[in-house]
This record gives sequence, C-alpha cells and structure tokens, in this order.
Amino acid sequence: MTDWFVPSAPTVGFTGSPLDRADALRKDDAAMIMARADRTARWLVLDDLRPVIDDGSGSDTLRWFSRDDIPTDAPSVFLGLADGSPRFAVAATGMGRHGDPRGIGAALAASASPGDAAIFAHARSLLDWHARHRFCANCGSQTTVAKAGYERLCSACDAHHFPRTDPVVIMLALLRVDGVEHALVGRQPRFPRRFFSALAGFVEPGESLEEAVRRELFEEAGITTARVRYIASQPWPFPSSLMVGAFAETTGTGELTLDDDEIEEARWVTKADVRAALDGAGPWLAPPPLAIAHTLLRAWVTN
Amino acid sequence: MTDWFVPSAPTVGFTGSPLDRADALRKDDAAMIMARADRTARWLVLDDLRPVIDDGSGSDTLRWFSRDDIPTDAPSVFLGLADGSPRFAVAATGMGRHGDPRGIGAALAASASPGDAAIFAHARSLLDWHARHRFCANCGSQTTVAKAGYERLCSACDAHHFPRTDPVVIMLALLRVDGVEHALVGRQPRFPRRFFSALAGFVEPGESLEEAVRRELFEEAGITTARVRYIASQPWPFPSSLMVGAFAETTGTGELTLDDDEIEEARWVTKADVRAALDGAGPWLAPPPLAIAHTLLRAWVTN
Repeated sequence: MTDWFVPSAPTVGFTGSPLDRADALRKDDAAMIMARADRTARWLVLDDLRPVIDDGSGSDTLRWFSRDDIPTDAPSVFLGLADGSPRFAVAATGMGRHGDPRGIGAALAASASPGDAAIFAHARSLLDWHARHRFCANCGSQTTVAKAGYERLCSACDAHHFPRTDPVVIMLALLRVDGVEHALVGRQPRFPRRFFSALAGFVEPGESLEEAVRRELFEEAGITTARVRYIASQPWPFPSSLMVGAFAETTGTGELTLDDDEIEEARWVTKADVRAALDGAGPWLAPPPLAIAHTLLRAWVTN
Repeated sequence: MTDWFVPSAPTVGFTGSPLDRADALRKDDAAMIMARADRTARWLVLDDLRPVIDDGSGSDTLRWFSRDDIPTDAPSVFLGLADGSPRFAVAATGMGRHGDPRGIGAALAASASPGDAAIFAHARSLLDWHARHRFCANCGSQTTVAKAGYERLCSACDAHHFPRTDPVVIMLALLRVDGVEHALVGRQPRFPRRFFSALAGFVEPGESLEEAVRRELFEEAGITTARVRYIASQPWPFPSSLMVGAFAETTGTGELTLDDDEIEEARWVTKADVRAALDGAGPWLAPPPLAIAHTLLRAWVTN
C-alpha cells in the first residue's frame, strides 16, 4: 500500500492562522448580530491596508480593538473565532501605529505570535477586495456587502460576487550539469539590488498548474520542462494571490533566452550557492523566510 | 540526492491543449492585426458558451471558421498559435450545431482530438469572463478589451482588470480502518441519482491549499486532517475554476457530521468499491474521466 503522506509539508509564510473561520455563522444574520454584540468580540483595524500594531509589547503583534473603540459606521468583515470569541477586521484611519504594508508581514511572522501574519493576510485580502469591488462588474451598479464580508450582491442584475483569489505558480527549475543539480534563480527589474528569486507568473484561464509552470518557464527563460512536482502553497496578500510552489525538471542544456520585460538576469546556481545566499553570505540575496521562494530554496538544499 | 520527480503526473481532463499561447503577441497591437489578417487564421465560435462542432466527421471535434465566415463586429480573443497559425475564439449565434455545455467537454475529451477539450476550456472561461465583466468593479464605468482579450481597461479610473481564475480544492479523505484504507465520497443535493464524488470547495482569501483542504473537510464532513498530499490540477471552465486535487490523511474514527446544505450523504468506501464504481458495476456512480475526482479515485486504487 502506498504511503501517500511521507513527504512532510514545509513551513510557509502567511499560513497557520489560529482562527476558526466558522463559515456557517456568516450566512446567519442573527448569529452575526450576536457575534458583533459579544463583549469578547475584537476588531483588527487596517489603515490604508496596514495593520495597527500593539504598542505595549516589545515585538510587533496585532492590536485588537473593542467595539467601543472603532468607528460605528465602518463596515467590518468577519474573520472567525478565537477560542469561541468573535474576530473582525475593519478599515479605519488614525487608530494607532502601523508598519509599512510589506515589512509588517515579515515583522509579524517573526514575532511571538507568528499566526498574526496569517490573520493579517486574511484581513488585508478581504478588505482590499471590498475597497476595489464596490460596483457590479456585470452591470455597473453599486453592490452591497453580504455574508459577513464574503459576498457582494447586486440588486440591479442579481449577480453574486465572491472574493477573488488569483493563483500564481512559482517554480524552481532544476537541471543536472555534469552530475551536479543546479536551480534557476532570476531577478525582475523592480527587485532590490543583488536580489534573486524563483520565477513566477499568474495561472491563466484554461490551464493546469503544471501547464502554467511549463508556459512561464518557456516564456520568461526559454527553457523546456519535463516533469513538475508540487512542493507547497501560501496566500500572498499583495493583493490576493495564492502562490503555488513547485520544482520543474528542465530538459536540454539550460541555455537561457530571457524575456527582458520580466527577467533582467537569471543564473543557474548550486546548492552551495543557495546555502550561502540563505545565510546572507553569498554574492546574491535570497528571498526572506516569509516568501514561498525561500521555502522552495530551503526544501531543495535540505533534501 | 533526492529524485524529486519520481511520481508520474496522472492524466487529467481539460488539459493538453496543443496551442502555444504566444503571450508576447498579445501586447503587440501590430502583431495582432497581422494575426487576424493571416489567411491561415481560424476562429472557434461559442454560441451561448457552447462550442460549434464539426459536422463532417463521425466524432465531435471543434469546428474552425475562416475570417470571412464570422460576424465582423463580434469581439474575439486570441487563443494562441497552432503550428504558427493564429487561433481565436468569438461569441456568435446561429453558426451551426453545438452540444450542451457540460456534455460537450466529455465528448471532446473522448474524441480523436482530446486537446479540443482544453481549447474549449480556455475559450469558454475567457469569453464568459468578458461577458460578465463589462463594467469596472472599482468605479462602475464601462471597460474596454485590451491585450487581445487578456485584460480589460477602465478609462475613467485607470483600473486594469484581468481574467479571473478561482482556485478550488477537491480532496479524497483517506482513513485506515482495521488496516484497510478507505476513502470518503459524498454527494451534493444537486448531483444525479447514485452519483458520489470527492468533497470540494473554493479556496478563500488568506489560506493555503492545505489549509483550505482541512477547513472544507471539517466544515462539510466534520473530520480532521493531518497531512495533505497534492496529486494533480485541472482547469474547469464552468465558469472558470482551477481544481486542485489532493489526498487528505484523516485522523480519528472517521465519524461524520455532515453539512446538509452541501453534502446530503457521504460514505467511506474501499478500493474494491471504487474499482467497481469506476467500471460502472457498483451500487454508486463515480465521476466521469473528464473530472479530476475521477483522476483522484483512479490514482488511489492503482497505487
């Protein structure tokens, strides 16, 4: 009998939320009214999509507000239950200190409450979706929030709209050269200096994850893929991607033809190169632990 | 050195398009004008999202129209290149015979050109997205088609909109009872009589695929998951999902608590049960080969 579950799942950023999403409550208007009135209910405040942070402790953690502390007119979304206690997120300004939108994810992941990064990802994607989807894509009318923030309804044409999650493939192309396995890392023009990562791209309508991996590697680097192996996935809340990480077996010599718009430089690196980069001791910089590209590189060098 | 690529990828429906998506051409307006004027260019016609089918041959295959045969005012989207020859899809009515929207996918997959099902999936998802996203979700203004059908632009608020693909997890929960592995199959109220399949649900903002698998199995069947193993993925063009198929290791006794709105009946079945169902010889009906649930069941019983 095949032991399907031998490979252990690697750790990835923005996962591990301690909240129970309790989706059955969302459609129950009476339950949601009770949840908002619960004296243990707490609200996470996002100011321009940045979370307000607790000032009291030494490390960055999310700050949870009581009902009396938040603006009464601000629309809030239901995040779930923390040991039975309701948790919401709301957009508001001037409520306290907050970090920059990207740095705060890493700070939260490295804090004493690493699940905070996942709660932030959940709240940010949902509130950002509401902010940019106030109108019906089908008929142009204004829509209203339903199901505690997990749906928007159009009363004009009766369309139901759901939060959007965009699947993205991110892959480490692997190639054996003279018996030594190499991986492909590249840099986009917008990356910080010396920073290299795995190649990535959005999944398109009508293709599988494996087909998207093959297409992107050929488009961006001119290389051909044989087999694809799924490694891990993570939510990425800028604004709302589902990152799907994979290894791709490269055929051919590994000669590269780069799409200069997407990739300004790419190179085949060894495990020793990657270990040095992950240790901050190499000539190039690897992605930080929060990024699934980091997970892919670490999974490659430790197996 | 780990051999990452040992598991061979199973065959899944709606994959294997023979077209090169040639994405570099999409943003090049001059290249797209030339592609449309190419005398070898062909158009696939979708009538109310159903493909017009070739009448000439015995089995169902897609019918490809020349430029002169299609309405000049109908907006078309670029599908890619077939051996260098441009292929488009266009919405139009009264152009010929077409099948019912769901049955036709299976007919195409079983035809002499199984890649036709993947082309249909690509075209259907893209044209359906345009039909239901003519307005800007950000400001409510009318939008216009850009990049040969892979973007819509809002001139009022400058928003860029991209085709939507919704990730869905579909999973076979596995449980060992007295040393015999069992899998969980269930039926939604809308399923045909005696039809059972793997459980499934949409991935939500802020969760990984593995977290979505755990959440859905707990919500729909009340069971708890330990490890999750990715198996395969497929596009599902009704309207535009990315199905991600996995096995889920069940902990506990396997006692079920069903969400009656989603699952009206579920049962733990053995490999012998599944083999009989796949052969059409059991007391329940398994999903057809086009569905990734079929792929999951077949992968389970053959390994």
